[in-house]
Amino acid sequence: MGHGVVGGGVAEIIATHKQKLFSAVGEEIYIKHILDLREFPDSPFADRFTKNFEDISNDIEVRIVVETMGGLHPSYEYVKECLSKGKSVVTSNKELVAAYGAELLQIATEQNANFLFEASVGGGIPIIRPMNQCLVANNVSEIAGILNGTTNFILTKMIRENMSFEKALKLAQELGYAERNPAADVEGHDACRKICILASLAYGKHIYPDAVTTQGITDITLEDVEYASIWGGVIKLIGTVKKVDKDTIDIIVAPMFVPMNSQLANIDDVFNGIMVRGDCTGDVVFYGKGAGKLPTASAVVADMIDCVKHLKARKHLFWVDSDNSSVLPAEKSVTAMFVRGVANNKIDAYYKAKDAFGEIHILHKASEPENEFAFITEPMTVAEIDAKLGELAEEGIKVISKIRIGDL
Amino acid sequence: MGHGVVGGGVAEIIATHKQKLFSAVGEEIYIKHILDLREFPDSPFADRFTKNFEDISNDIEVRIVVETMGGLHPSYEYVKECLSKGKSVVTSNKELVAAYGAELLQIATEQNANFLFEASVGGGIPIIRPMNQCLVANNVSEIAGILNGTTNFILTKMIRENMSFEKALKLAQELGYAERNPAADVEGHDACRKICILASLAYGKHIYPDAVTTQGITDITLEDVEYASIWGGVIKLIGTVKKVDKDTIDIIVAPMFVPMNSQLANIDDVFNGIMVRGDCTGDVVFYGKGAGKLPTASAVVADMIDCVKHLKARKHLFWVDSDNSSVLPAEKSVTAMFVRGVANNKIDAYYKAKDAFGEIHILHKASEPENEFAFITEPMTVAEIDAKLGELAEEGIKVISKIRIGDL
Repeated sequence: MGHGVVGGGVAEIIATHKQKLFSAVGEEIYIKHILDLREFPDSPFADRFTKNFEDISNDIEVRIVVETMGGLHPSYEYVKECLSKGKSVVTSNKELVAAYGAELLQIATEQNANFLFEASVGGGIPIIRPMNQCLVANNVSEIAGILNGTTNFILTKMIRENMSFEKALKLAQELGYAERNPAADVEGHDACRKICILASLAYGKHIYPDAVTTQGITDITLEDVEYASIWGGVIKLIGTVKKVDKDTIDIIVAPMFVPMNSQLANIDDVFNGIMVRGDCTGDVVFYGKGAGKLPTASAVVADMIDCVKHLKARKHLFWVDSDNSSVLPAEKSVTAMFVRGVANNKIDAYYKAKDAFGEIHILHKASEPENEFAFITEPMTVAEIDAKLGELAEEGIKVISKIRIGDL
Repeated sequence: MGHGVVGGGVAEIIATHKQKLFSAVGEEIYIKHILDLREFPDSPFADRFTKNFEDISNDIEVRIVVETMGGLHPSYEYVKECLSKGKSVVTSNKELVAAYGAELLQIATEQNANFLFEASVGGGIPIIRPMNQCLVANNVSEIAGILNGTTNFILTKMIRENMSFEKALKLAQELGYAERNPAADVEGHDACRKICILASLAYGKHIYPDAVTTQGITDITLEDVEYASIWGGVIKLIGTVKKVDKDTIDIIVAPMFVPMNSQLANIDDVFNGIMVRGDCTGDVVFYGKGAGKLPTASAVVADMIDCVKHLKARKHLFWVDSDNSSVLPAEKSVTAMFVRGVANNKIDAYYKAKDAFGEIHILHKASEPENEFAFITEPMTVAEIDAKLGELAEEGIKVISKIRIGDL
């Protein structure tokens, strides 16, 4: 269902990797129908196109349905109908999984069908299956990742070439890395959906994106990038979830200072990287292209193969629905913070910041404006930081940037 | 079978992660026997120990056998006997898989049992399963990895702290990273077994370690490290396999110059990293601790869980035996090469090297000895390089170091 970039790639791989797939599955994967409202007269599968969803849902010969339409509707209704009829479904649609994963997994379980979505997080980077299978003997204490290639490309241009956010975004659009309406990427929603899927998988309860504090990169300036460098790191858009206690997780999407010795610091351009911290394995990092036609399509095809192998015995991939009550309120989240601002008397501002915060780590840059100050706080709750910055504001010490220090 | 570091870790994880494992499998994993010649009176499983292999092989209740004894004998005989009786076997023993993988996989297939070995390559880093399942829709053109933590620790100390090989090895031994007899690590045999397993898996034919040119790090000097840095990279011990054509692979273990912008360049200390280049995914990199008690044991336990889930339906993990005829002879392997040596007249040596090699890239270091020269050749076969260096030797231009340039 859907013959766009990813769906077209799936058809292409099935056509071009026939022998490889046959030897992996032991039988041929045959495309019976392709649902798309557009016409594709030149496709080698031109005779299989339909505009009518019922051609698929009512065909009892169809055992596996691939959904690459994107968006929530009618994807949700179509996938639900297919699963309800006992067909296995493979999707690359992170929005769908993040919004309806628990419900669709429940229907799949009841129908003894599979609902698989390796391609929804990390594109061609294996992450769902390794987490679900290879790391199953671990208690995962934390997951942190660069989960969006578009924003990582923009930040890389800002860091390496001193390009402004606006220019880097324009370049990303010209290169086809960013959509004309880039909001889902640059405001962090895409990364948020992905960290929600990983958190749901790791902790067994559905976490909905609207419960997650999500901050994009639109406010990041070249000044912030320079201070990060002076501190010894880079700014990356990080999606992270940490286990706080048995019933609570701290989950957030935000730009963060990442120290250069972190494995995530050197993941540049459109690449993604995901770090999973297990109590037995320690840190394991997965790296690769997080998007793109063939990487994403190859992850979809891998899931299709798994469906063929598990037509009778379901794969164990499951989480229950939840009311998001396990999500720690953002103001209780503990972090060190980079703070940059302006004050008439900078020396006085530092003294007052020290009075308010106790220890602070002051950052100086070479050609620093007369009235600019910048420092890093000790780790404390966001509520405490905001209260202290509120006190400073009353004394004319004005904050311009506030960026988390990633503990990565 | 085997209650050493890894086997003890497996028992520990099964005891401490009971609930987590139960929810993954849906039933309890019960340890019935532990084979070890030693006594463990304080183990919580003290009542399960046996010194008699038949207690396991003849027990029809035992469905899954874990082998962590290491070495080839009696591991091979025991594993073969268990598989022949239809029991599934999980092993962390890379020597066993590299020497007898094809035969043991064949027996497993005939008996409809599983033979799994995720822990044998990369310890706690998921690699066998992602390659076998997630990347199945890819034609893999190349695998390259830092596959041995001990040598990577030693090289990291040489690079970062200018420590000699001998001192770094001694430190590694003191820290428990290297054995008293470090040959298997520093001479590259451990890395060789691992790249053989990955090559067998990727290309479907068993590659035996004795068919692979294997060079360790014992000859690497601080001078070489310094030249690598001037060139813009670091020296890493790399195991790599490339597809040359339909029937031929180029497989080698050797120290290589790795450019700083490669994802493998920043993998330091005892960490391992494996890059898999697929035609659809592009480069995917897996990173983490390649050895150690709990990382390795958690990979073993993950395989045990997979066995429980696939007691009836075998996992598709297989390669056929081969006579190594697909391995490209080492002298036909194409690479650029770093060459360092001494000559009475350095300028003359460079002229002659240019005459012999065509283009060369000369490297200068700050306090270079009067008679030392260093350059990098264009890519050509090892046979061509050796022939040209032979010509130079006849003119008194003597080579001290010869290190491959990794195309990573």
